[in-house]
Amino acid sequence: MTQSPGSDAEFRIEHDTMGEVRVPVNALYRAQTQRAVENFPISGTRLERAHIEALARIKKAAATANAELGVLDDERARAIEAAAEEVAQGLYDGDFPVDIYQTGSGTSSNMNINEVIATLASRALAAAGSETSVHPNDHVNASQSSNDVFPTSVHVAAASALTKDLVPALEYLAASLERKAEEFKTVVKSGRTHLMDATPVTLGQEFGGYAAQVRYGVERIQASLPRVAEVPLGGTAVGTGINTPAGFPARVIELLASDTGLPLTEARDHFEAQANRDGLVEVSGMLRTIAVSLTKINNDLRWLGSGPNTGLGEIALPDLQPGSSIMPGKVNPVICEAVIMVCAQVMGNDATVAISGTNGAFELNVGIPVIARNVLESVRLLSTSTRVMADKMIDGITANEERARFLAEASPSIVTPLNKYIGYENAAKIAKKAVAEGLTVREAVVALGFVERGELTEQQLDDSLDVLSMTRPPQ
Amino acid sequence: MTQSPGSDAEFRIEHDTMGEVRVPVNALYRAQTQRAVENFPISGTRLERAHIEALARIKKAAATANAELGVLDDERARAIEAAAEEVAQGLYDGDFPVDIYQTGSGTSSNMNINEVIATLASRALAAAGSETSVHPNDHVNASQSSNDVFPTSVHVAAASALTKDLVPALEYLAASLERKAEEFKTVVKSGRTHLMDATPVTLGQEFGGYAAQVRYGVERIQASLPRVAEVPLGGTAVGTGINTPAGFPARVIELLASDTGLPLTEARDHFEAQANRDGLVEVSGMLRTIAVSLTKINNDLRWLGSGPNTGLGEIALPDLQPGSSIMPGKVNPVICEAVIMVCAQVMGNDATVAISGTNGAFELNVGIPVIARNVLESVRLLSTSTRVMADKMIDGITANEERARFLAEASPSIVTPLNKYIGYENAAKIAKKAVAEGLTVREAVVALGFVERGELTEQQLDDSLDVLSMTRPPQ
Amino acid sequence: MTQSPGSDAEFRIEHDTMGEVRVPVNALYRAQTQRAVENFPISGTRLERAHIEALARIKKAAATANAELGVLDDERARAIEAAAEEVAQGLYDGDFPVDIYQTGSGTSSNMNINEVIATLASRALAAAGSETSVHPNDHVNASQSSNDVFPTSVHVAAASALTKDLVPALEYLAASLERKAEEFKTVVKSGRTHLMDATPVTLGQEFGGYAAQVRYGVERIQASLPRVAEVPLGGTAVGTGINTPAGFPARVIELLASDTGLPLTEARDHFEAQANRDGLVEVSGMLRTIAVSLTKINNDLRWLGSGPNTGLGEIALPDLQPGSSIMPGKVNPVICEAVIMVCAQVMGNDATVAISGTNGAFELNVGIPVIARNVLESVRLLSTSTRVMADKMIDGITANEERARFLAEASPSIVTPLNKYIGYENAAKIAKKAVAEGLTVREAVVALGFVERGELTEQQLDDSLDVLSMTRPPQ
Amino acid sequence: MTQSPGSDAEFRIEHDTMGEVRVPVNALYRAQTQRAVENFPISGTRLERAHIEALARIKKAAATANAELGVLDDERARAIEAAAEEVAQGLYDGDFPVDIYQTGSGTSSNMNINEVIATLASRALAAAGSETSVHPNDHVNASQSSNDVFPTSVHVAAASALTKDLVPALEYLAASLERKAEEFKTVVKSGRTHLMDATPVTLGQEFGGYAAQVRYGVERIQASLPRVAEVPLGGTAVGTGINTPAGFPARVIELLASDTGLPLTEARDHFEAQANRDGLVEVSGMLRTIAVSLTKINNDLRWLGSGPNTGLGEIALPDLQPGSSIMPGKVNPVICEAVIMVCAQVMGNDATVAISGTNGAFELNVGIPVIARNVLESVRLLSTSTRVMADKMIDGITANEERARFLAEASPSIVTPLNKYIGYENAAKIAKKAVAEGLTVREAVVALGFVERGELTEQQLDDSLDVLSMTRPPQ
Repeated sequence: MTQSPGSDAEFRIEHDTMGEVRVPVNALYRAQTQRAVENFPISGTRLERAHIEALARIKKAAATANAELGVLDDERARAIEAAAEEVAQGLYDGDFPVDIYQTGSGTSSNMNINEVIATLASRALAAAGSETSVHPNDHVNASQSSNDVFPTSVHVAAASALTKDLVPALEYLAASLERKAEEFKTVVKSGRTHLMDATPVTLGQEFGGYAAQVRYGVERIQASLPRVAEVPLGGTAVGTGINTPAGFPARVIELLASDTGLPLTEARDHFEAQANRDGLVEVSGMLRTIAVSLTKINNDLRWLGSGPNTGLGEIALPDLQPGSSIMPGKVNPVICEAVIMVCAQVMGNDATVAISGTNGAFELNVGIPVIARNVLESVRLLSTSTRVMADKMIDGITANEERARFLAEASPSIVTPLNKYIGYENAAKIAKKAVAEGLTVREAVVALGFVERGELTEQQLDDSLDVLSMTRPPQ
Repeated sequence: MTQSPGSDAEFRIEHDTMGEVRVPVNALYRAQTQRAVENFPISGTRLERAHIEALARIKKAAATANAELGVLDDERARAIEAAAEEVAQGLYDGDFPVDIYQTGSGTSSNMNINEVIATLASRALAAAGSETSVHPNDHVNASQSSNDVFPTSVHVAAASALTKDLVPALEYLAASLERKAEEFKTVVKSGRTHLMDATPVTLGQEFGGYAAQVRYGVERIQASLPRVAEVPLGGTAVGTGINTPAGFPARVIELLASDTGLPLTEARDHFEAQANRDGLVEVSGMLRTIAVSLTKINNDLRWLGSGPNTGLGEIALPDLQPGSSIMPGKVNPVICEAVIMVCAQVMGNDATVAISGTNGAFELNVGIPVIARNVLESVRLLSTSTRVMADKMIDGITANEERARFLAEASPSIVTPLNKYIGYENAAKIAKKAVAEGLTVREAVVALGFVERGELTEQQLDDSLDVLSMTRPPQ
Repeated sequence: MTQSPGSDAEFRIEHDTMGEVRVPVNALYRAQTQRAVENFPISGTRLERAHIEALARIKKAAATANAELGVLDDERARAIEAAAEEVAQGLYDGDFPVDIYQTGSGTSSNMNINEVIATLASRALAAAGSETSVHPNDHVNASQSSNDVFPTSVHVAAASALTKDLVPALEYLAASLERKAEEFKTVVKSGRTHLMDATPVTLGQEFGGYAAQVRYGVERIQASLPRVAEVPLGGTAVGTGINTPAGFPARVIELLASDTGLPLTEARDHFEAQANRDGLVEVSGMLRTIAVSLTKINNDLRWLGSGPNTGLGEIALPDLQPGSSIMPGKVNPVICEAVIMVCAQVMGNDATVAISGTNGAFELNVGIPVIARNVLESVRLLSTSTRVMADKMIDGITANEERARFLAEASPSIVTPLNKYIGYENAAKIAKKAVAEGLTVREAVVALGFVERGELTEQQLDDSLDVLSMTRPPQ
Repeated sequence: MTQSPGSDAEFRIEHDTMGEVRVPVNALYRAQTQRAVENFPISGTRLERAHIEALARIKKAAATANAELGVLDDERARAIEAAAEEVAQGLYDGDFPVDIYQTGSGTSSNMNINEVIATLASRALAAAGSETSVHPNDHVNASQSSNDVFPTSVHVAAASALTKDLVPALEYLAASLERKAEEFKTVVKSGRTHLMDATPVTLGQEFGGYAAQVRYGVERIQASLPRVAEVPLGGTAVGTGINTPAGFPARVIELLASDTGLPLTEARDHFEAQANRDGLVEVSGMLRTIAVSLTKINNDLRWLGSGPNTGLGEIALPDLQPGSSIMPGKVNPVICEAVIMVCAQVMGNDATVAISGTNGAFELNVGIPVIARNVLESVRLLSTSTRVMADKMIDGITANEERARFLAEASPSIVTPLNKYIGYENAAKIAKKAVAEGLTVREAVVALGFVERGELTEQQLDDSLDVLSMTRPPQ
C-alpha cells in the first residue's frame, strides 16, 4: 500500500530537518508530505475538498496579516496569497495525498499545504524573474503552528458546509414538506400511537410536523454555530501565541472571515481552544439529532406508503426503480432506506467524534483529522441526502385519500369525544364492543342504549363522530 | 448528600493509615469505607447484589488458600470463611454503602468487604473467647490486591448472571417462541420486504426465525464466556503476584470455581488481565447484539399486532392494561415497548463499557466499577425482560388466520413463481396490472392472455398461485 | 419478582375498564398502577424524584386551568390542586412503584399519578364531609392525555434539573478552577503537545482553560434550553388537542411556568412535539459534550499529579483515602477516576437517548421513560460529581512550582523563539543537539557557534530563552 | 452530483420493467444500475473491492449450481462463470458506480453485477458466434434474490478480510510485540496503577501483556467467525427458497466455499438469516473490542515514550517525521495517534452497524449496504494500521534501561514486600516518610528503627527491596 518508488528517474531528492527524502518528480509537495505518505498507508481516505480550501484560505489570510504586521516581505506575501488562492479553488487537490489517519494534530496536512504553496509561490517568483524563495515553515507557516491552523481549518470547513450546504438543504426539504402539508391539509386519516388506532389527524398535520422537525434542525445548527465559528488561530504552538506579532490573531481572523464570508471569531480562551475540539463534538451532537429526526420521518413515510395491498397504503411514494431482482413489479421505498442508512452513519460518526473529543492531553487534542473526517462527512451526507429526499420522494408523494378516511372512521378511538358526555369508562365499553363485534362506533353507541336512554342526543353523536372536526384544535 | 454525622454519640472512632475517621456506631465497616462514603456522594447507586456475593466468595476462597499455603493461621482463616459466607448470602448488604462512582479500581469496595469481614470475623472470635483479631489488609486481604480481586469479582458476578440468569431466560423465551412456531406452522401470510408485499411465508416460519435468533444469543454468550470466566486473581498489585505464596493463583481459583460452580480459569497473562477489561467489553458487545435481536423481534410483533382496525392485524397480542388515559378501550403493545427500551439501555450501557475499556493505563484499568454496573445491569435487564416477554406476551399471542391468508393472496408478489414460465419481465407486467386495476394476480394473468396464448396452462397457474406451497422450500 | 399477593386480607379490590385487580390495601394507587406493577417486573428502577414532582405540578396546573375554563368544578379542582401539591413535595413517593421499563408513552406512570391524586383528593373531600368523588381519568386527567402530559413532565424535570442543579454546579466548579488559575498564574511549566515537550505555559493558563471549558458547558445548556423548555402539553392524544377546552394549552403552560419558575413555552407544532423527543436528544448531546470536557480535564489533572516519584508531579492532588489494599502509603487520583466514570456513563446514556429518539412512529415517540431515566440521571451525575470535584479536589490542589519550572527549562522546544533569528531549520539543529547530548538549549546554541558567528546576540539569546516571557501573548 | 448526460451521442437507450433509461454508451451496466446512479447521488462512496469480488464469486457459483440442477443451460452457465471470474478479479470495478447509500437490501448493487455479467457474457457468446443472450434477472440472477445474495456477499467479503487480512495482521503485530517482550525481559521499571507509582514490573512483562492482548483479538474473531461464515444464500426472496431448484442452497454454498477457500455454511434458519444481520453486528463488536485493546496499547506507548525531557521517557519510539511546523526538532508519537484515530473510527463504525442491525422488519434487514461499508472499512483500517504499527513503531522501540531502573527504585511502593514482616500499617508509615522527606525506602526503614529494633534483618531488607525480584512470580 505504501507508494514505493519505481526507478530513481521518477524521483527528486528533497530534504527536511531529518534528512533526505525521495519525492515524486512532479509533486508540488516536498519531504514532509512524502514522509507522511510513507508513514500512513492506512485508509486511502484524504482530506475533504472543503477542508483543503479552508486550509488554503488560512494560509492566504496569514500571509496578508504577516505582511501588514511586518513579519513577511510583500513579495513573498503576494506570492503566497496567489498560490493559496489557487489551492483554495481546487486546482491542486491531487497534491494532497496524506491519509486522514495521520498525526493527530494534522501537522502532516499543514506541512503538505505549506510545501505545496511554498513550491507554487517559489515557482511563480522564479517565473517572474525573482530570486526570492519561499520556505514552507519560515514563510508560509509564519506566525502559525499546526496546532492552531489545523483545528481552525476544520472549524472553517465545518462552518462553511453547515451554513452553505446543510442549512439550505434542510430549508429546501422543509419547504417541500410544507407544500405537501398544505396539499394534504384536508386528508383526514387515523392517528396512530403505539402503532394502534388513535383519534384522527390530517395527513397535512403529519407533514407539517415533519417540516417543523426539519426546521428545528436548522435552529439546532444555528444554536451551535457560534462555537463552531470560534477559532483557535493565533494561539500557535500551545495557545500562548508564541512567535506571532502583536495584533496577529484578531487581524488574521478578520481577513479570514472576510474572505470566507463566515462569522468567524477569535477563541475567547486560546488554551481551551487548542486543547479541545468541544465545539465540533457539540455540533456533531446536533447533526446526530437531525439524523434522529430524519430517521423518524423516513420510517413514517415508508410505513404510510407500505403495501400496495398488505400494508397501510395511506400514501404512495414515487416509483423510482424496480425493487426486486426476483419479485416482478415490486417497488420499494428506496430513498427512505438510503436516508435512514445515512442517519445511522451520522450517528456512528458522532460516536467517533465524541470519543476523539476525549483524546487530548494538556495543550492539544490529537484526534483532529478523524474528527474532521466524520463531522465533514456527516454534514455532506445530510446535505446531499435531504435534497435527494425532497426531489426524488417528497415532491412526488400522493395521498390515498379515500383509504385514509376509511381507516380514520374505522378507528375505535373516535369514541374519545364522547368522554365528556358519558365518561371514560362508558366510552371504553363502546370501543370494546365495536372492536369485538365489528361494529362502527356509532352502531355500538346505539346498541348499548346511550341514545335510547337520552345520555347522548343524535346531534351530539353526529358532532362528536365527525372525524375531520376531531383534527381541529378547539377554538 | 454526604452522610454528615449528627451527634458524637452516634459515631465511633476508627483509624486507618491516614488517621481517624468517625464511623456510624453500628456499622460493620470501618475507616476506609467511611472515607469513601464521604468522598463519593455521587449517584446513590451501589454494587449489585451479585457483585457483593462474588467479592465475598473470593475472600472466602482466599482465606482457605492462604491457610493451606501457610500465609494465614487456621483460626483466622475459619473465621474469615464463615464471615464471608454470610456476606455472600446477603445478610449484610446494608453495610456496603460505597457509591459505584468511586476509585476506578474498586479499592473502596474491596476495602469495604475487607472491613466488614474483619469486623464480623473478629467479633465471632471474641464471642468464642479468642483474643485474636482479624485485620482487613493483613488477613482478609492477604495475598490479594484490589487490582486482582475487584476485576475478578466482576467477572465472577457476570459469569454467574450470564449462565444462571440470562442463558436460561433466553432459552425460556426461545421455547415459548418455538411453541408458537409450531402452532402457527400452517398460518400462511404475506411476506414483507422493505415493508412492501412480498411472496408468502407462514407465521410459524416467522416465529421460528425469532426463536432461532434468540438461540443465537445463547451461542453468542457461550462464545465469549471463556474470556469472561478467565480471571486475574493471583496477580495482586500489578500482575506479578507480589506478596502471594507459591501456588496461590491456581489454588484460589480452583476453590472459587468449586464454590461458585463456574468454569473459572486463571488469566493466561496476568499483565494483560489486570491492565484491561476486554473480556467484559467483548461480552457487552454480545449483550448488545442480543438487544439488537430483541429490538427487531419486538418491532415485528408490535407491527404484526397493529390495529385493531387500521393496522396490519395479523396477530393479536394479549391485552394487559388499558392503553390510554384519554382514548377509551385502547390497548397497546406495552411489553414490546418495554423490551425495546431495555434494548436501548443495553446498547447505551455497552457504549459506556467500551469507552471505559479504553480507560486504563499501564498496569490497571480504572473504569472497573462503571463497567461492572453496566454489564451487570444489562444482563439483569435482559434476563428479566425476556421472561416477561415470554410470560406476558408470546404465550398469549393468537393468529388472525383468515386475515393473514387474505393478505397473502392479495400480494402482487405471488406472481413470482411464474418467472420460470414467462420470465421476469412478463411477470412484472402482470403484477403491475393487478395493482393498477385492482385485479387478483390470476385475473391479471388471464387478462393479459398468457393462458389463452398457451404460455401457461391452467394447472401451472393453479400450482403456481397456491400461497401455502410457496412457503415450502423445494424438495 | 412480581409482587404476588399473600393473603386476601392484605388486598382490596379495584377495577378499571378491563376488570378487577387486587391492590395492596394501603396503596393510594389503584387498578392500572397495579397492573403495571405486575406487567413490568423488570429493573426495580422507578421515576426520579424530580420527575414525580414535575408530573404533580402538571396535574395541579391542569386542575386550575380546567376550573377556569369550565371543564372542572371548583370543589374537585381545589382538591386535586392540594393533593398534587403534596405529591409534588415528595410526601407520597412510595406510591409510585411503576418500573421505568414500562409502556413507552409513560401511560402507566401518568395513570399512577392520576390514581394517587384521585384517591388523595377523594379522601380529602370525604374528610371534609363532601360526597363528591374524583375520578382518575375524568377529573385528574381532564383535558390531558399521557401523550402530552408524560413528555411534558420529562421536559419540565429536565429543565428544572439543568437550570437549578447543573448550571450552578458547573459555575461552582468553574469558579474553583478560576481561583486556581489566579493562584497559579506565574507558575511556569512545560507545555506538552502529543505528550511531548513543547513551549512553556503557566499552570494558571491551563487551569484558566479548564475553567473556560466548564463555562462553555453552561453556554451549551443554555443554547439548548429553549427546546427543552418547549412542551407538548395541550396536544392531548395525538397533537390535535382533542378533548381540551379552547385556550387550555396556553393557560395550563402559563400556570405551570409560574409554579415551577421555568421559562416554559408551548410547542410551536404540537404534532412534532408529541411524535418526537428531539429536544431531549439534543440536550443529551450537550450533556455528552460536557462529559467530554470533564474527561479531558480530569485526565490532565491525574497526569499532572502523577508520581509521586515516577510521574510528572507538577501538581499535588489532595490525599483523600488510602489508595491500595496492598501497596502501603499509596494515594490515587480517585476523584478524577470517579468523574471520568461518570462521564463514560453520560456518554452511554446519551447513546440510549439517541437510539430511543428514533423509536417513534406517527403521532408518538414510545421511548419516553427510558429517555427520561437517562437524561435525568446524566444531569444528576454531572451535577453531583462536579461539586465533588471542586470540593474534594480542585480546591486542594497545590503546585510543585520548582519542579514545574525545572521541566519548563528542560524542554528543547524553548528553542522556538529563535526561529525568527536563525530560521526553523537551524533551530531544529539546536534542539536535536541539546537532546542528543544532554545540553541545555543555551549550551547547544553556543556550541553550534550561533553567538560566536554573530547570528544571535547574548541579549537576544537571554530574551528568547526566558520561559515565563514565552507564556505571554505578544502585546 | 448526479451524473447528468451531456449530449445524446454519448448515451445508449436501455430498458427495464419501468421503461427506458439513457445509459453511458460504454457502460457494461444497464438500466437498473443507471437508475440507481441517478437516484442516489449521496456520498460518492462505492462498494469495497472485496465486496465486488464476493458478489462475483456468488454469481459464478450460482451459475454452476444452476447448470448442474437443470435451471440453466450449459452455454449460458459457462459464459456467466467466465464473466463472473473476470469481475471477481477486479477487471471491471469502474462499472460499479452505485452509491453505498442506496436501497437497504443492496438490490441496486445486485442488479449492477447482474447487468455487468449479463453484458459481458452476452458479448462473449456473440463474439463466439452464438445468438444466445444472457438476461440479468432470468439467467445471472437465476435461483437468487438480492435478499439472499447481497447479505451473503457481505458475509463472504467480511469472512475473507477477517481471515486473510486482519488475523494475519494481528499475528504480525503480536509477533513484533513478543520480540520486544523478549528483548526487554530484564528491563525493570516502576509499575503504575492509577498513574501512581506502584511495585516494579519489567518492560518485557508490559510488552508481553500487549502481545497477549493482541492475540486475544485473534481469538475473538475466531469466536465469531462461525456466525459470519454462515450465509443466507438459497433463501431467495423471503427465506422460503422460492424459485430455487431442490438442492440448490447446499450446492451453491459448497461451490462458493470451495472457490473462496472460506468455511462457509448454510444458514440454520433461513428466515432468521435474511431478516437480520446479527452475525455482522456481533463481529463488529469484536472489532470494536480490538479497537479498545489497541487504544490502550497505543496510549501506554506514547506515555512511556513521552518527553524527551519532561515526560516519562522509559522508552524511545522511532523518529518518523518532524513533529511540529513551529517547534523545531520536535518528534511526536504519530503512529500511536494514527492508530488511536483508527480505533475511534472503528468504535463509531460499530455504532452504525448496531443501529443498522435494528433496521429490519419482517423478512428483511434494510441496512445492509451501510453495515457492509462499516464492517469492511473497520476490518481494513485495523488490518493496515496494525501492520504499520509493527513496522513503523514497535520494531524500532528501544528501552531507556537506566532511567527505567532509576524510577523503579524511586517508587515508594517497593515497600510492599515488607508487609509480611511488619504489617501494612507500618509499611505505610515508611512509604509516607520516604515521600515526605525525599528518602529512599531503605533510608526510611532505617530511620524509623525497624532494623534497630530487630523487626527486620538487613538480609530481609536487602531481599525485600530488590526490584527485579519483585517482578517475578513466587515459585
